[in-house]
Amino acid sequence: MTMQERVAAVLAHADAGLDGSWGRLFELLRIPSISAQPAHKADCMRAAEWVRDQLAAMGFAVEIHPTALHPVVLAHHAGPADYSGPSILFYGHYDVQPADPLELWHSPPFEPQLVDGPHGKKIVARGAVDDKGQVMMFLEALRAWHEAGGGIPARITVLIEGEEEVSSPNLDPFLAAHRDALAADFALISDSGMWNIDTPALTTRLRGITYMQLTLKAAKRDLHSGMFGGSALNPINALTKILGEIQDDAGRIQLPGFYERVRQISNAQAAEWDALGFDETKFLGDIGLSVGVGERGFSALQRLWARPTVDINGIWGGYTGPGSKTVIAAEASAKISFRLVPDQDPREIAESFRRFVTERLPKDAQVDFEVFGVSPGIEVNISAPWVGAARAALAEEFLRPPVMIGCGGSIPVVESLKRLLGIDTLLMGFGLDDDNIHSPNEKFELRCFHRGLRSHARLLGKFAAGISNPV
Amino acid sequence: MTMQERVAAVLAHADAGLDGSWGRLFELLRIPSISAQPAHKADCMRAAEWVRDQLAAMGFAVEIHPTALHPVVLAHHAGPADYSGPSILFYGHYDVQPADPLELWHSPPFEPQLVDGPHGKKIVARGAVDDKGQVMMFLEALRAWHEAGGGIPARITVLIEGEEEVSSPNLDPFLAAHRDALAADFALISDSGMWNIDTPALTTRLRGITYMQLTLKAAKRDLHSGMFGGSALNPINALTKILGEIQDDAGRIQLPGFYERVRQISNAQAAEWDALGFDETKFLGDIGLSVGVGERGFSALQRLWARPTVDINGIWGGYTGPGSKTVIAAEASAKISFRLVPDQDPREIAESFRRFVTERLPKDAQVDFEVFGVSPGIEVNISAPWVGAARAALAEEFLRPPVMIGCGGSIPVVESLKRLLGIDTLLMGFGLDDDNIHSPNEKFELRCFHRGLRSHARLLGKFAAGISNPV
Repeated sequence: MTMQERVAAVLAHADAGLDGSWGRLFELLRIPSISAQPAHKADCMRAAEWVRDQLAAMGFAVEIHPTALHPVVLAHHAGPADYSGPSILFYGHYDVQPADPLELWHSPPFEPQLVDGPHGKKIVARGAVDDKGQVMMFLEALRAWHEAGGGIPARITVLIEGEEEVSSPNLDPFLAAHRDALAADFALISDSGMWNIDTPALTTRLRGITYMQLTLKAAKRDLHSGMFGGSALNPINALTKILGEIQDDAGRIQLPGFYERVRQISNAQAAEWDALGFDETKFLGDIGLSVGVGERGFSALQRLWARPTVDINGIWGGYTGPGSKTVIAAEASAKISFRLVPDQDPREIAESFRRFVTERLPKDAQVDFEVFGVSPGIEVNISAPWVGAARAALAEEFLRPPVMIGCGGSIPVVESLKRLLGIDTLLMGFGLDDDNIHSPNEKFELRCFHRGLRSHARLLGKFAAGISNPV
Repeated sequence: MTMQERVAAVLAHADAGLDGSWGRLFELLRIPSISAQPAHKADCMRAAEWVRDQLAAMGFAVEIHPTALHPVVLAHHAGPADYSGPSILFYGHYDVQPADPLELWHSPPFEPQLVDGPHGKKIVARGAVDDKGQVMMFLEALRAWHEAGGGIPARITVLIEGEEEVSSPNLDPFLAAHRDALAADFALISDSGMWNIDTPALTTRLRGITYMQLTLKAAKRDLHSGMFGGSALNPINALTKILGEIQDDAGRIQLPGFYERVRQISNAQAAEWDALGFDETKFLGDIGLSVGVGERGFSALQRLWARPTVDINGIWGGYTGPGSKTVIAAEASAKISFRLVPDQDPREIAESFRRFVTERLPKDAQVDFEVFGVSPGIEVNISAPWVGAARAALAEEFLRPPVMIGCGGSIPVVESLKRLLGIDTLLMGFGLDDDNIHSPNEKFELRCFHRGLRSHARLLGKFAAGISNPV
């Protein structure tokens, strides 16, 4: 059989076995592996064991590694003896978000259902798309190769963790401790989205973040605003004055040098995004807004994916109960985050913000800073051979090329994989914006699951064929 | 007996009976008439009855008037048949603040003690000075006249309420409903302070207030700051930007026309205040600050007593828990108050602030305002004859003239008396700054109580003599 014939056999087998594939996904969805809730600790272990068993059945060498919280499943398959393609590290997670508020679900969150919708059947359950459904597309693609394609076609390490929904407290130490076992040419993650149900996407840009809290302190106790107003420093007045200067009227962030390392995206990239016809009016209309804010002079997608931003995420101080209290507070606090783009240094931004505040601090005010998180923006090198292979696989499956999109948020594991293992990540996901992740009635379109499974099967075929010579 | 001899007899009687006077004050202090706490409802009634009995024993026609919360004691004495002086409305309150935190008291708050201090004996108890002790100076002055001066020497209405510490919810309706019974030439209140233990004071200026809350609303739900940052309006960013513009760097309030009606104080008044030698460094040092803020170009006392201010009393929005949450809040709120001086219109200021915010409101933001209180600044006409009488009485008692001071806060009853009864108020009080009102270990210097009692007795003598002819 040629590679083309093998891929065709794999895809035909996957199509014929689709009911079995979503049936197995349902088995996994029935395990309420909520990582945030101690009552579900045993369920997390059950989910890990279930995943382990799937991989073992396909000939993977697989082990469950306990951590301080929930275990990691780590599996390896060397692939064919003559394999010359890249070695792949597939990352996913078996844990899910809590399901509450339960009363808003139309069916129990851990009793998966196939429900009719505008795009055909959809799978409804907590974890349907985030991330059990997306993990299972890959495992079922492997199964199709295992059963109908002559075996696992590539050198693959699979890492499925159980703490993603609680910020992966044990993942970085795990990565650092298993560098050798995790060695790969690149990482592959299915935890992102398509552009729309007909248009596949690769996420090639992620914004970084610098997240800080500051507390501005003045008098040593709360004061009566009648007795002291006009003499004593009010830390809320001072805090609003300082934070109010963070952006100018055109939305530009005023930290000195903030934009120095911000690169414009290429004309080609800009044109590709413009061609997507992103409807910011609808995007904002869905949340009750009508006008995009942010920096003037950039398209909506550029502002969301390729421009840094600042958001005050929380603010508090003084009297916040009902009615009035004539108090001058002793202190006032805010949480603030900068979304960053590649080449901006998140620690440098933290320092710059400290200086910005400190330089504007009134005499008698002290300020405490706490940094809750820094991670750099990430841009995937789209000339990497596996990116080309993924583009080709998606184009064949969807009969249109994938779009290279950005993501305004961070995916911390991508940064960890880069920092600790030195590898880039290919983000090929099949979710849709309306999948209700982290919300009641989470769903995954069966069509997306099916095409995602087939796309993964095709991509494995590319690697088996040798990347430099895509089918 | 001449009036001078009668006053001398009254003062001698008061001196001889001082132990009885503070003994009766102790009786009143032992009643825990905490108006804020439903458990003390009966105690409030007991306190009212105790006050009623004191007044009845001196020949007052006195009644207890129930209200929706705590009763009002209302008493009247026509004075001598040939009385030609002004009729006086004395206002005070029998209710007290809660005493907690109890563990910070050195003796039980409702077991009054005479304790040695730097100024001699002091009375320690909740309510010692605010306002039971100050009320009792007046009642004991009346008693001295009643027992040794030939009878109650003036036409006097006494109104003692029981809701002052809970913002007097039923006082305004009571005043409006009893206008005739309350008719008087002026009101007299002892609920303020001296300049220092040797220097009496009349409080002749009170700042007014406009107190508002605003809530700025943007999207219809909280948003993920990665997914929406750069496109969706952040109401906390917007709120800090708007509030940050309220004052310029010199502390000037930026509402259009805000200072139009603000009068400079007279040179004489400025000179009198300068002569007080107010030590702002110590005033601020006590609360951990070192530099006065507020408008440049004005002395500390002018800023505190005769200049308007703005303070943000509370602010809140978004995520305020531990750690980080990358949220763009749906709304953000603040409480803000303007301290006003005479001639500024508090409702006009509220409107002006509304406009200030609305004009700066980003598209898509809505703002709700709530006005929690408006009251004008008050300036006593110091050429009124009763002010002259009080100056003379205090000068005779303390052997130095009283200073005409201001108060940075409001005393709402003063505004109510003006608005509903059309009368001015004479604020002659004997508290000290370190009396710990509303705090643990509230105290009243026995020396202040004694001299306050004597000052009230002297002042009554002035009225009995006919104001135009002070003794």
